[in-house]
This record gives sequence, structure tokens and C-alpha cells, in this order.
Amino acid sequence: MELGFRLERESFQPLYVQIKEHLHRLIEKRLLLPGVKLPPSRDLAQQLQVTRSTINSAYSALLSEGLVVSEVGRGTFVSGKVAAPASGAEAGQGPEPDLPGVVDWDQQFSRRGLLPEPSFWPGVEPFLLRPQTISFIGGVPDSALFPIDLFRKVLNAALKKEGKALLQYGNVSGYPPLKRYLSTYLLGLGIEAPERSILIVNGSQQGLDLLARVLLDPGDAVVVENPSYPGALDVFRSNRAELLPVPMGEDGLSREALGRILQRQRPKLIYTIPTFHNPTGITLSAEGRRELLALAARHQVPIVEDDYDGELRYEGPRLLSLKGLDPADLVIYTGTFSKILFPGLRLGWIVGPEPVMERLRAAKQISDLQTSPVLQAALYHFCQKGLLTKHMEHIRKEYRGRRDLLLESLQKHMPAGVSWTRPVGGLSLMVRLPDPLNSLDLLPRAAEEGVVFLPGPVFFAAGGGERELRLSFSAVPAGRIEEGVRRLARVVRRMIADQKNKPPRPRLRERAPVL
Amino acid sequence: MELGFRLERESFQPLYVQIKEHLHRLIEKRLLLPGVKLPPSRDLAQQLQVTRSTINSAYSALLSEGLVVSEVGRGTFVSGKVAAPASGAEAGQGPEPDLPGVVDWDQQFSRRGLLPEPSFWPGVEPFLLRPQTISFIGGVPDSALFPIDLFRKVLNAALKKEGKALLQYGNVSGYPPLKRYLSTYLLGLGIEAPERSILIVNGSQQGLDLLARVLLDPGDAVVVENPSYPGALDVFRSNRAELLPVPMGEDGLSREALGRILQRQRPKLIYTIPTFHNPTGITLSAEGRRELLALAARHQVPIVEDDYDGELRYEGPRLLSLKGLDPADLVIYTGTFSKILFPGLRLGWIVGPEPVMERLRAAKQISDLQTSPVLQAALYHFCQKGLLTKHMEHIRKEYRGRRDLLLESLQKHMPAGVSWTRPVGGLSLMVRLPDPLNSLDLLPRAAEEGVVFLPGPVFFAAGGGERELRLSFSAVPAGRIEEGVRRLARVVRRMIADQKNKPPRPRLRERAPVL
Repeated sequence: MELGFRLERESFQPLYVQIKEHLHRLIEKRLLLPGVKLPPSRDLAQQLQVTRSTINSAYSALLSEGLVVSEVGRGTFVSGKVAAPASGAEAGQGPEPDLPGVVDWDQQFSRRGLLPEPSFWPGVEPFLLRPQTISFIGGVPDSALFPIDLFRKVLNAALKKEGKALLQYGNVSGYPPLKRYLSTYLLGLGIEAPERSILIVNGSQQGLDLLARVLLDPGDAVVVENPSYPGALDVFRSNRAELLPVPMGEDGLSREALGRILQRQRPKLIYTIPTFHNPTGITLSAEGRRELLALAARHQVPIVEDDYDGELRYEGPRLLSLKGLDPADLVIYTGTFSKILFPGLRLGWIVGPEPVMERLRAAKQISDLQTSPVLQAALYHFCQKGLLTKHMEHIRKEYRGRRDLLLESLQKHMPAGVSWTRPVGGLSLMVRLPDPLNSLDLLPRAAEEGVVFLPGPVFFAAGGGERELRLSFSAVPAGRIEEGVRRLARVVRRMIADQKNKPPRPRLRERAPVL
Repeated sequence: MELGFRLERESFQPLYVQIKEHLHRLIEKRLLLPGVKLPPSRDLAQQLQVTRSTINSAYSALLSEGLVVSEVGRGTFVSGKVAAPASGAEAGQGPEPDLPGVVDWDQQFSRRGLLPEPSFWPGVEPFLLRPQTISFIGGVPDSALFPIDLFRKVLNAALKKEGKALLQYGNVSGYPPLKRYLSTYLLGLGIEAPERSILIVNGSQQGLDLLARVLLDPGDAVVVENPSYPGALDVFRSNRAELLPVPMGEDGLSREALGRILQRQRPKLIYTIPTFHNPTGITLSAEGRRELLALAARHQVPIVEDDYDGELRYEGPRLLSLKGLDPADLVIYTGTFSKILFPGLRLGWIVGPEPVMERLRAAKQISDLQTSPVLQAALYHFCQKGLLTKHMEHIRKEYRGRRDLLLESLQKHMPAGVSWTRPVGGLSLMVRLPDPLNSLDLLPRAAEEGVVFLPGPVFFAAGGGERELRLSFSAVPAGRIEEGVRRLARVVRRMIADQKNKPPRPRLRERAPVL
């Protein structure tokens, strides 16, 4: 351990004091954390070219301040005591007088920016820390169901078998066996994607970001469903795109509204989540898929199909993906292992027309050269052994049960006037409150009662969604679902009662329904 | 396995022919690869709602074409035979007539682009496949020295201990224990970086890309060393920055030339590799570091310090990093585990002033949410056990030996007029050929002799470098280094002799020396 000492041998300050003050400052600034072992005095003396007794004097001074503790035979360790500010007479602290000062960072940042107006996010973190809180927030898989040990074993085998290659630089477009596996996997969705047309990315998020970088200029318009996935909205906003929201109907995005937009404007992209849409849980019908493809083809607008959990179907016939139905080759398809397996792998993929893939590979190379081959290889072996198929069967059954519980509980406990979607797959559904209730008002009260969710405005690109809220059921233990709904219903009923006791307020013109 | 069948039950074509033709096409298009097992006929019959004998007829037809082989008791497998084009009468192939056609992708791409003019790259791949070729190309660590088994063990332990958390979504700025470790590690380079000022990224490349996205607008100027790392040049070019090349002197980038530029122009950034510079191997002197910092401070231009291998020092006193000497807090520092450990982890970090880090965290979130926590946790345990320190000692000794061998071999075999740098650390050095020899002419001849390298023009932002070439020694086995230089020297001598027999050609005005 080297600790950045800069001793001034000509200084009036004794060396041991300089050493002590430096260590004091590192501890104070939490650069040396409690429990860290300081170097043995012999080593530090040699490193700094001072006598060992100089080091011992410095350590003694720290000891007497309580900043370190000495354990016989083990060494000297940083204690848990908070350090008072050091005397600070040391060189190298703060700007030197002959340097005219610091950079004005506000003037330095890119105007095209990468920091969008931050998406609205409710401050529910404190409530999440309470063990009694039931959270319907995360549209994530339940980590209690993770097949960790099976994955650990394939990871082991992969490193044993080809660790040298996996830990070296790899292929920009992904680990070839994984791409070949995906090629067959995608056939099941009707997608014919040869290995070369697949790019492995760090989750769908990177897929969307690379697409935006390759396709969008500032001011370009992007059609998005209203509501939609905030991570995608952030990508488009941060690329300074104009968002054109299209409302959701009962069978998916409104083709009528889209048709009207396409008659007036020429968007660069249509971004859609046709299957188990986030946040509504709605699935675009087979007919709707054909209509959407025909509209996009007529107006020559590419579609980005975000199929983040399309394989988590709980009932009804399977629909082909848009990409699988796409004769005009205008669909760019993104998928991910984050929902069907582990978010922590950060592994997803894109499939699209070759001219797009060529640009995407170049963009991937510039962005981060390539995705780590280590986890890709483990994942490949996991899939190859049939473990992904098995795991998906398991979680499908589990999540279907949770969805059913949630639907039953809503039916049982929610007062009249509250409605909700009935998703046939995925991780979430959307609840609609009766007018004039507001999910932003509801949230803090619900949190106090021990239940949290994401309010609608998180998902609405162009404002609105105040009456909506998203309930994700995938990560809530089955035994907690009904209790969560019971708590939520209690608050809703209370708010309705409060409203009735209020004088009526003038009604604003109502938005078109979005569910 | 589902294979995207779309049977037309009303068609004049028998169902078994439709099934056979579909499978034929998948095999032909390499969507079903040799060795893949077809579904058992019972399963496929059930899935497609046809009789089992229909499937058997389809499989028999494929068998008679040699496209599949049947193994008794095991099933039916795709053979290695190349399929002739299928008759193609199938639905869903090619654009449908009622859809007016495809997207004109060339018109769709972003004009600000992410595909730069591709960096110059020599076509040496075929030579790399020959086992006798000695390659000085890759500025990469030697995978023969990778401590794979030790890493595998810590990875195992990490997944056993906290697999649930590691495989779930994690922290946007990185795995906290790894950031705390880095905080102490960086003290050794004189950098005081508390945990909150560190962002974990997917290797330096992502660090540079995020920085460019956060700081640069099209047309902004960026000072770069000439020559420099092509991956960084690509990042700046792809963000449509103007590159301002500064020549390298014997003790690092020319402060004089930089000073002249800063009097005329106001660049957004100075990008530098002060320690074991890539590709020259030159290290900026202590005095040079102070001068560079003073210049940057006077003109209020931030510095990006790329310290990709600063810990691989083989001799001489250690210099503090620019960031460690930076009182004005204008240096943004990027580091990576790619050279000191494994490139395949894709793990690096950035440290910088808080306003920059705030933007970078937002940019990281938009780009890919976060870097996978799995490998970060393994790496943390690897470091914590002292294994990184140990490994670095090992490779330092090994690479120092290879550098010494390379220098001795050059001395012994190269003809007069050839010069080279003498790096005190890092992975590479740069050779300069006597006028009028050209490294682009040299490369194909050397490759024929069984030795390859990267020619200078790969690294020069503004043209030039024809007389330079980079030799990387880190990944060349010690026993092959002298033979590689012997081969190279043989070709150089032959080219010099050829020149002497040629009539003198008019000399162009020579570029300023860059080494």
C-alpha cells in the first residue's frame, strides 16, 4: 500500500508530524476507511526513506488521538473514530496561489447534453428500507428464485475450459456460441436471425442507447407509447429527440392515433413494447401487429421492438414478434436476459437489418469495445444445457401465480371506480383510480401504510398519468400480495371518502383514456 | 425448440412438404447449424397439430437430401452438408407485394454519426493465423500469464456469498467495495479519490466515450498527442470533434507546441497518456507534468489523463500521476484493469471533479444502467486478498525481461539509421525507419517473413507516421522476441539496399520529428 506521501525534508515541521498529519487527513477524508491496516512501520520507513522510529512516532500520535488501534502481533488498523479536521498546513491541499484557478465546469458541458431533464422519480427510498413495507415497485425478477448455484457451476466450467480466451479481448459483436444459440432461440419467436445479424449488448438499455446514437439527430421525432418505459424515454430525450406520444388502447398502441401522426410528421423511429407492455401489461393483438407493420412500411418508418419479457407468457396463444412478422425488414428487435434470468449479467441483444447492424457494431466498438466474454460464455453453457428453458418454466408458473393473486386481491379489496389491466404475461399491471384521485397523492399515504408502487407520471412522456399507478408483482412474495393490496385499498377508500366530504372542484377537460 | 413454422392448411402444397421446405431453408440459411438436434417427431407433431407421420415424411425427405442424419436412439441431427437453395415457394419470404417496400437506411442514419471515418487498420489478419508468425501487434497482456484459477476461485466465493445481490440490478456507479478498494489503490498514485468520486465503467474505452458525450459538442476541439491511442481518436472523431495534434518530444508531449495552440484556440479537452504513452512508450517527465498542468490551468482547459498501464513500471523512480499533482482539480483520470489483469473483464474506472462525475453517472445510467456487479465483486476479492499486487509483481518482472530482450535484439540486429524509443514501462515501443523507408511498405514484406507489427499511420491523428512502427512486447513469448527482430531487421536491410539501387527521388519537406 502506497499512500501518496509527499514529505518536505527542508520543512520546519518534523517528518513524523508530516507523516501523522497526512495519515490523519486520509482518515478524516475517509480515504483510509475503518478496518484498513496501515503498512508495517518497517515497510513504510523503507518506502519513505526515514527511520523506523519516525514512523513509530507518527503511529503513536495517531494512537493517542484514537484514530488507529494497535493489535499485538497483527498490526495497526484505522479505528472507527471520526477524525477532527487536520491542521491542514500540508502542501498540495487546495489550489496553489500561482495557479489561476479552476475550470468553470458549467461552461464545459456539452450543450447537446447527456443529462436529460431527470425523469420524474418518487422519493420512496426511505420506505423501502422498512422491513414491513410491501413494494410493488421493481419490474424485476425475484432474486429468491435465482438458480445461482447452477449458474456458478457453468461459469466455473467455462473458465476452466477456456479462461485464457474469455479473459482476453474478445469479439466486438459477442461470444459466437451465444450468438448461435440466440439464432435458434429467436426462431421460436418467428425471427430468422443468422449469427452475423446479432449484436450482444449490455442489456436492452445499451441496445436502445446505441440505436439512438446511430439513428437520431437532435430534433428528430420518435413515436413512443404513452405511457412507456422511462429508461427508453431518457435515451431519446438525452439524444434531444422530440417525443411523439401515442395513447395505448385496450389491444395495444392506437393505430388510429399513429396513423394521424404519420400523416403530419415523419418520425425517425417508432419505439414500441408490443408484448406485455411496460407499464400497462397490455399486449398488441395479432391484427394490431399487422396494422402497425403496414403503417410503418407505408410511411417507411423503422420500428424498434423492445421485447424485454415477451417470453413470460402465462396464458393464451403465443403471438409472433413484430420482427417475426416483418416482411419489409424495418423492425429492429431488442431482447434481454434481465427478466428471464439475471439482471446482474447485463446481457441483451439486438437484431436488425444489416445496414443498421454494421453501424451498431461500430458504435459498440467505440462505446466499450465489447461486452465481457466471461458471463456470455457462462450464459451460453447455461442455455445449452437446457437450464434457461427449465428456469423459464419455473418462473412462468411462479409469476403467473402472483399475477393471479394480485388480480384476485384487487377484485376483492378495491372499491368501485378503481379499474386495472389484466396482463396475459410480464411483470406488472396498471391500476386506474377514479376521478379525481391522484396517484402522486396516494403514494405517500400508501407508503405510510406500508405499501409502495410507481405512480403513473413516471411513465408518461408528455405529462399526465396522475390517475394511473403501476403494480409489479414479479418480485413480491406470494404471501405478501393480498396484504399489500389490502393496505392500498384501505388508503384508496379513505381518499374517496375524503373527496366526498370536499366541495366539488371545477372539472378540467379530461385526457383521453390510456388504458 | 420452436422453429417459427407458419403452415398454410389451405395450400395446395402438402403439409409435410411445407415442413420440409421450412427446415430446408433454415438449414440453408444456417439458422439451424450442423449438429443441432431436430425436435422429436412426436413433439413437433403435437406442436404443429399434425400427425406424427407427416413429420416423419418431412424428416425422411431431408434425410434423402443428406441435410440431416438420423442416429438410432438419439434422434435426428442437422448434418454438415451445404444445402442447395430451397424452392422458396414459401410464404413470408421477401417483401410482400402489398407492402410498398423497405426503409432506405442510408437516409435514416444520424448525420452527427457514430461511425467515424474508420481508423486505418492494416489487413494482417491472414498472417496472424499462420502459427509461424511472430506478432508484435497486440498491446495486450499475455494470456499465458493469466492467474485464471485464482480468479475462478474468488468468483466462486463471491457468487456463493452474495449471488442474489450480484445477479440482481446493482449500483449505477459500481460495486461499492471495489470503489473503496480503488480509493486506497489510487492513493499510491497520489490521487485522493473518495468512494463517491469513482465511477466504474466497462474499461477505459467506455470512460472516454462517456466523457466525450458529456463534454463535447460537434466542432469542439480536442488536443491529442500525435501519435496517440486510436480507440480514443475514434471516440473524439465520432463525436465530431476537431483534433488538434501536438507532437511528442523526448520527454512527453511538447509543452511549447501546446502553448502555441492554447494561445490561438480554446480546446474543450487535452487528452494525454503521460505514462508509458501509447504508442511511443515515452513518459512525461516530472517537470513536464508540472508544465502541462500549469498551461492547462492558465487556459482553464480540462485534462483527460489516460493511465492505462501506469503501474507497469520496470525501472526508475515512480512519478505521481497528473491527477495526483493537480491542485486546480482540472484532471479527469481514467484507469483500467485490462492491462494489469484481464482485458476480458471489461472493467475500468474514472475519477474526476464532482460536477463531471455527476454528469458521468447520469450518462452511465442512460448508456447501460450499470456495469455487471458479478465480475466487479470477484475482482474486489481478488484485490483484497493481495492477489492483484502479487500478479502485478509477476508480470512487471516478465514484461521487463521482454522489453530488455527487445531492446537488446534491436541493438544487435537493426542496421544503422533505425532508431527506437526506450520505454521505462508499459507494453510497447516505437521504431523509426531511416528516410525514405515506409512502415506501410515494410509491413507486407515483414509479414511474408513471419513478423507483423502496427505501422505508424494507425496512430497519427493528422496523417504522417509513415516512418514509424509500434512493437508491442508484452504478449510475445520471450523465446520468440529475438527471432522476430531478426526477421524484421532482415527485411529492413533488404529495403535499404533496394533504395540504394534506385535513382534518388526528390525529397519532400520533412515532418517535425515525433519521437
